[in-house]
Amino acid sequence: MTVRAYINTNKDRFLTELLDLLRIPSVSADPKFKQDVQHAAEFVKQSLEMAGVDVAEICQTAGYPIVYGEKIVDPDAPTVLVYGHYDVQPADPYELWESPPFEPVIKKTEEHPEGAIFARGSADDKGQFYMHVKAFESMLAENQLACNIKFMIEGEEEVGSENLDMFVKANKEKLKADVVLISDTSMISLEHPSVTVGLRGLAYMQVEVTGPNRDLHSGTYGGAVANPINVLCKMIASLHDEQHRITIPGFYDEVEEYDAAYREQLNKAPFDEAEYKNKLDIAETSGEAGYSTIERVGIRPTLDVNGIWGGYIGEGAKTVLPSKAYAKVSMRLVPNQDHKVIALLFEQHLKAIAPASVKVKVVPHHGGQAAVVPTDSIGYHAAEAAIEEAFGKKAIPTREGGSIPITSLFQRELGLDPILMGFGLDTDAIHSPNEHYGVKNYFMGIETIALFFKHFSKMYVKR
Amino acid sequence: MTVRAYINTNKDRFLTELLDLLRIPSVSADPKFKQDVQHAAEFVKQSLEMAGVDVAEICQTAGYPIVYGEKIVDPDAPTVLVYGHYDVQPADPYELWESPPFEPVIKKTEEHPEGAIFARGSADDKGQFYMHVKAFESMLAENQLACNIKFMIEGEEEVGSENLDMFVKANKEKLKADVVLISDTSMISLEHPSVTVGLRGLAYMQVEVTGPNRDLHSGTYGGAVANPINVLCKMIASLHDEQHRITIPGFYDEVEEYDAAYREQLNKAPFDEAEYKNKLDIAETSGEAGYSTIERVGIRPTLDVNGIWGGYIGEGAKTVLPSKAYAKVSMRLVPNQDHKVIALLFEQHLKAIAPASVKVKVVPHHGGQAAVVPTDSIGYHAAEAAIEEAFGKKAIPTREGGSIPITSLFQRELGLDPILMGFGLDTDAIHSPNEHYGVKNYFMGIETIALFFKHFSKMYVKR
Repeated sequence: MTVRAYINTNKDRFLTELLDLLRIPSVSADPKFKQDVQHAAEFVKQSLEMAGVDVAEICQTAGYPIVYGEKIVDPDAPTVLVYGHYDVQPADPYELWESPPFEPVIKKTEEHPEGAIFARGSADDKGQFYMHVKAFESMLAENQLACNIKFMIEGEEEVGSENLDMFVKANKEKLKADVVLISDTSMISLEHPSVTVGLRGLAYMQVEVTGPNRDLHSGTYGGAVANPINVLCKMIASLHDEQHRITIPGFYDEVEEYDAAYREQLNKAPFDEAEYKNKLDIAETSGEAGYSTIERVGIRPTLDVNGIWGGYIGEGAKTVLPSKAYAKVSMRLVPNQDHKVIALLFEQHLKAIAPASVKVKVVPHHGGQAAVVPTDSIGYHAAEAAIEEAFGKKAIPTREGGSIPITSLFQRELGLDPILMGFGLDTDAIHSPNEHYGVKNYFMGIETIALFFKHFSKMYVKR
Repeated sequence: MTVRAYINTNKDRFLTELLDLLRIPSVSADPKFKQDVQHAAEFVKQSLEMAGVDVAEICQTAGYPIVYGEKIVDPDAPTVLVYGHYDVQPADPYELWESPPFEPVIKKTEEHPEGAIFARGSADDKGQFYMHVKAFESMLAENQLACNIKFMIEGEEEVGSENLDMFVKANKEKLKADVVLISDTSMISLEHPSVTVGLRGLAYMQVEVTGPNRDLHSGTYGGAVANPINVLCKMIASLHDEQHRITIPGFYDEVEEYDAAYREQLNKAPFDEAEYKNKLDIAETSGEAGYSTIERVGIRPTLDVNGIWGGYIGEGAKTVLPSKAYAKVSMRLVPNQDHKVIALLFEQHLKAIAPASVKVKVVPHHGGQAAVVPTDSIGYHAAEAAIEEAFGKKAIPTREGGSIPITSLFQRELGLDPILMGFGLDTDAIHSPNEHYGVKNYFMGIETIALFFKHFSKMYVKR
């Protein structure tokens, strides 16, 4: 049987297994799901064992464990290191889900006429890393595994991969490979397959503004005592100028500027602005002056408030002048911007602009560097060849707005450029209610991944 | 026995009864306390009956009932209408209370060396209206009740007194009186007794900003799609200019301006800015340029955000670009500003400044007109005389920042100027965690109220 035929024969089981994994609410950000995250790690280990690895381990860290697995078929063959994560984003607000986030259902949508799996983590990243497990099983079963394979599936990606750094540094020999293959990004569409060649970095901060030392009656004190919500709003508003450029001094110092030719190339990617606005039900897009939507999310840094709260937020009215107001603010960064430097500039700036009537505390949550993937590597060429064979079309290189902070870790510590071959769509609602992942995307991904191994082994020249 | 002696003899019981009332969590803003609010109305009715009224009724409305009671001692004697409210503000955030909000305890504080009752509603307004019930009981018991008395104690003051208007309009004959006496304000201190001669009005609004039709991943969309939190912050920030004046067109059109002599008089009230800042732990006060703290809360209108929320507000980090952001905003108004006009100006302005990339919805919560109490009435003179006799000091007229929206209703519908003789302190933390009311203030209030009746009956000239 061919690998393709094996995948087709086992479709139902491949889907059922993924649904079982999606039922585990492995939310790493919320301590109340601690046991579920541990449970998901166990599930991954067993899946690797069932798929046929020689070694499968749950590697404890100071946080959630990293699941490692390997199959060495030939010491002289090239080795592919697969990275993925079994943890997921928090699912709230739960009330906006059409079906419960951890009870996966398959429904047809406009983008997915053959059905999509609705569940938290379906696209980010359980559905995507599990394709690698199933591609591996299929290749092994049909005796077509032409590369050695190593799996490193972590449980803290959604909270900043804090313990991965130490694990990678301590296990360089174990993780030795010729390429890192990651499916945690999206493609333009099944009709326009693409490979991600750039990712933005991230600096995620929490801001706390304290006014008076207790909540006050807004009638008795309003107008005479600085209201920390008003102050926080003013500070946040001042972080963008009229051109929607970020006003933090030094923020743009290291930002890579691209020439007209590069930008023209970038803007050639298929993109329908009217459809984009229509799908989001917005009258206008909005962003930095002088850049297109593709450029704004691809090559420009941004600043977004991800959460804000303070004062009375219940039903009805309460005339309170609160003691404190809070915001979670994240900045997406582009190559050469160091997330630690940016975090520091942010903190300094917020303290500098705070009026004397309040106290401001800034706590960095987590961060990661931006990444650029070279397009002249064997790994990249293998991805191009795999996509072309699977989809019958050439892959379009794209720069994606999201962040996978650990890509720079692999470059630095293992000397490996990651190949970002993801199969999600931007409309999959990752990090949002009703996250979903196309059933067809899932199976096309499994097939394409297997083809990557074939092409990579052919192109590979021993170092 | 004198009235004073009666009060002294019954101190323990007067306190115990109030503590029982404070144990009822009559939060009108939150439907889950519905039965408790009803229960509080029953309690008030029974208290009036025990104190000796001829008539006590629970008058149903479209919302919570109004408790009415009366004692007519002499058709030719003047009649005092007592207004108060048995509902209380929500108690959250509960975790900031040092003792549970509905389990009253008496503790000594810096301002209250003889002890203060800590409980939601202790000062606002259960502890204050209950003084009238006990003053009435004491005068009646000692055969010293020189005026007829009518009680109107409502249960919706903290949610805008929506049904009081209709009740007053429908019961003008029943409510006929010569003065309205209200204890729902504060005095400067027991050493500096004062009477409130001005109250600010209120317009309370809720703002909803909608960006995209669903929560988005801030990496994939950030920088290209307007973030409703950022937009809301910018809109709120723009509502004050650099002088901290409110920028809503027409907002100041009707604001009464005072001459230098009046402002000088106002600023003569005892006030220690250093102590004020110290008690609130703020380095600087903050408000409209060109006005003192006393003026900022007394004669100037203000705008405060009372609550804000949007996006992810749980533990940890979530990189979401939310669909919606919300704020509760209230404006304190001064005489001649119509709260309905201001609500409309606010709504129009917010819609005018909203960028095309979002949708804005503005819903008015509730409002009330500002009030000025004439200082040349018999009622005012009676209050002055009562305070001087009780405290041994002349009363200082003050303008308070808070609002009692129904005062203008009494002026309009009953032709009665209210006498605002309150005994709380600004530091009582009303509307905040750890609300409290001084035990001494409670008993001084009962005594002063009884003296008001004595002086009012003496000064009264039949109309």
